[in-house]
Amino acid sequence: MQTKIDRGILLVISGSSGTGKGTVCNSLRKRRPDLEYSISATTRSPRAGETDGVEYFFLTRDEFKRKIEAGDFLEYADNYGNFYGTPRDKVLELLNLGKTILLEIDVQGAHQVQKNYPDGVFIFLLPPSIEELKRRIIGRNSETEESIQKRLSIVNDELESGKSYNYVVVNDEVERAVDEICAILDAESLKVGRNLNLFDELVKNS
Amino acid sequence: MQTKIDRGILLVISGSSGTGKGTVCNSLRKRRPDLEYSISATTRSPRAGETDGVEYFFLTRDEFKRKIEAGDFLEYADNYGNFYGTPRDKVLELLNLGKTILLEIDVQGAHQVQKNYPDGVFIFLLPPSIEELKRRIIGRNSETEESIQKRLSIVNDELESGKSYNYVVVNDEVERAVDEICAILDAESLKVGRNLNLFDELVKNS
Repeated sequence: MQTKIDRGILLVISGSSGTGKGTVCNSLRKRRPDLEYSISATTRSPRAGETDGVEYFFLTRDEFKRKIEAGDFLEYADNYGNFYGTPRDKVLELLNLGKTILLEIDVQGAHQVQKNYPDGVFIFLLPPSIEELKRRIIGRNSETEESIQKRLSIVNDELESGKSYNYVVVNDEVERAVDEICAILDAESLKVGRNLNLFDELVKNS
Repeated sequence: MQTKIDRGILLVISGSSGTGKGTVCNSLRKRRPDLEYSISATTRSPRAGETDGVEYFFLTRDEFKRKIEAGDFLEYADNYGNFYGTPRDKVLELLNLGKTILLEIDVQGAHQVQKNYPDGVFIFLLPPSIEELKRRIIGRNSETEESIQKRLSIVNDELESGKSYNYVVVNDEVERAVDEICAILDAESLKVGRNLNLFDELVKNS
């Protein structure tokens, strides 16, 4: 294998609701246990057994808002009254150690990361077909009719936004999709810009 | 697998003398028999059994020079008095059909292709060490002392030029290097820009 790359990869996996981001990312983590998590910050209260800095960084609303103002998040969102965000400094720290970080986020979050960390590797998951996507969205028993209609209505806009990503992977079969994501990770770690140390060491020894 | 990509990939594998381009490309072709060849043009005379348009396109020096003037080559070189070149039109024709073409060329040739077809995928092969590279160059019985010294003297410049490529692969073990090149090919064929048809088809059917 290559010597360690100069800087880690921020791998962003995103896509419309119903494309199966969660399933794909769980399988990817099993195959690549070296992938790091980014611990999110949130304003929701800790649940029993949750520890600050382990499951989440727990912040007050004022603390969270000050961090938004200061540009301390790669992305954040307000989910039903609670803020959730990805702290920039923690991510950069891991990248500087050469670690690869997996972020599984929705299209709005990925759009913010594109602006705040354009060097990330952005993969857009596509469903095998629009019919299958609609079936998956409607099939979620956990959602209200209103929430389903809202998700369906933004599908086309979300698909359009996928054209600004680096790679596209069709999730027709989870393990095949994970194969493709692994190839992308392997290829990205071979990019010249991530391996300038290799050249310098060879020349130094010549 | 993905549906056919919108446009083929021009895969350029290059590197200093002695990095093992030929061995790597032969093994790559065995694993990926779908890789297309580009037939070179040359001013040297056909040998017994060679057919115009099969092994080479055989041109007169005047024809070749007119094509150089017209910008008809992605790259060309004068090797000991004979011209060799890669015809642009034949390569573009195959790329438009969605074919992937492998070009195995020296650093000077790759530099010309970078200028004439910047959308190519440029892989720089590195030797495991400078000592190994020197050993390989000197070990070629087919070369004169003068030719060996010339090759050794340009190694550092050639390594430096590798920093302008897209990917770097260390050829310490041929099959491992080929694994990495296959990952690069897989990842490149998943680039959004090569799959805009996928998005359009999904939206059309929505």
